[in-house]
Amino acid sequence: MKLTAAVLTISDSCHRGQRQDLSGPRLSRLLSENNFEVVEKRILPDEEPAIAQSLRYLAQNIRFIVTTGGTGIAQRDVTPEATRKVCSRLLDGVSELMRAEGAKHTRFAALSRGLCGTIGAAIVLNLPGNPDGAEQSLRSVLHLIPHALDLLAGKTEHSV
Amino acid sequence: MKLTAAVLTISDSCHRGQRQDLSGPRLSRLLSENNFEVVEKRILPDEEPAIAQSLRYLAQNIRFIVTTGGTGIAQRDVTPEATRKVCSRLLDGVSELMRAEGAKHTRFAALSRGLCGTIGAAIVLNLPGNPDGAEQSLRSVLHLIPHALDLLAGKTEHSV
Amino acid sequence: MKLTAAVLTISDSCHRGQRQDLSGPRLSRLLSENNFEVVEKRILPDEEPAIAQSLRYLAQNIRFIVTTGGTGIAQRDVTPEATRKVCSRLLDGVSELMRAEGAKHTRFAALSRGLCGTIGAAIVLNLPGNPDGAEQSLRSVLHLIPHALDLLAGKTEHSV
Repeated sequence: MKLTAAVLTISDSCHRGQRQDLSGPRLSRLLSENNFEVVEKRILPDEEPAIAQSLRYLAQNIRFIVTTGGTGIAQRDVTPEATRKVCSRLLDGVSELMRAEGAKHTRFAALSRGLCGTIGAAIVLNLPGNPDGAEQSLRSVLHLIPHALDLLAGKTEHSV
Repeated sequence: MKLTAAVLTISDSCHRGQRQDLSGPRLSRLLSENNFEVVEKRILPDEEPAIAQSLRYLAQNIRFIVTTGGTGIAQRDVTPEATRKVCSRLLDGVSELMRAEGAKHTRFAALSRGLCGTIGAAIVLNLPGNPDGAEQSLRSVLHLIPHALDLLAGKTEHSV
Repeated sequence: MKLTAAVLTISDSCHRGQRQDLSGPRLSRLLSENNFEVVEKRILPDEEPAIAQSLRYLAQNIRFIVTTGGTGIAQRDVTPEATRKVCSRLLDGVSELMRAEGAKHTRFAALSRGLCGTIGAAIVLNLPGNPDGAEQSLRSVLHLIPHALDLLAGKTEHSV
């Protein structure tokens, strides 16, 4: 059975229609190729309350929610803040791994503030806004997600 | 003079006697071989208040307290939450190092949420529940502990 | 145009004049060689309120504030606590990178608790007190700072 996923593009300019969302479709395709069923795609502005509300709502029915955008350090980048607010637990090792792998591709990977956390039985993963960066980051940790979702759902025979 | 240590096995099934505690004895042996005197061994259920209370109590007289179990992401895994609650300071670099070294042995190391922190002059270190993982994780950071305990006790001539 | 920088040496013994501040001058020289204009140098005791107050004050007009000292785990080491208090955002990836690079030079790098964070359009970076460690740590992340300061100042065309 496929795991359900959602892709949230978080970008003021994409939300206003001033820029084409290239990252969202790339991530949807990659998830589909890896046995996830992408059941929701949204484009949101860089607004913490709107992001937090969407994450909370989607996590009720969808197991894996990836966001793209808003992980940098510009004033409008608030995706990590929204994610921290709604997640009951953060998986620091997943963000560490994304940055460590990202550093092999870009010298600025260390500036990404993207988080990974859990809400109930769902996992939220913050990816950068750049399409190449978003895809590379997702590839670097995607192997962890099905196992993590099993553990969250109570299949705990292989504990970590 | 030997440094004092405690080993806390944190596992519902070990606590109920439904599973043999293999990690605790392995860690005790490894600590003994490395100049620690293991003066306390306990088996606790995955209950945050019980874990927090034990950590606080043991830290009054014991310098190094290792826990095994409850560091994963299942609902019952609450060892990091208890540890965060009782520690005045967290040593993020120690958890990072454990995960980075763990990644050489298991692809799921990034999912471990184990923390390292200080209570007064004591250090608490969260290790995974799996016996091999627990032993490997302890080995990966054990060289830091005597120096860290010296610093905590006020021997600060070599600052970091 | 050069970016402005400040160097804060945080050390009880340097502040009392019992020890010569070797790290501050080393860091000032390194910053000057890398297109920063060091417009402020201070020596502070290991007192959290004094450090926090200086960071807040300097961040009003200076873009990059490096501290040296007080990042260890001794009782008097409170630089990270002061930094956490005044920064609106922490850049965990920068601290991670410093520790990962530091581990190539000293086995105790994992014990450093140094943070990197932002206050308004300024960046605060905690470096260890040891002169060699301070210089090596600054070198390991300095390439990130001009780009990060651009992003903070609203030049966001290359987002991360």
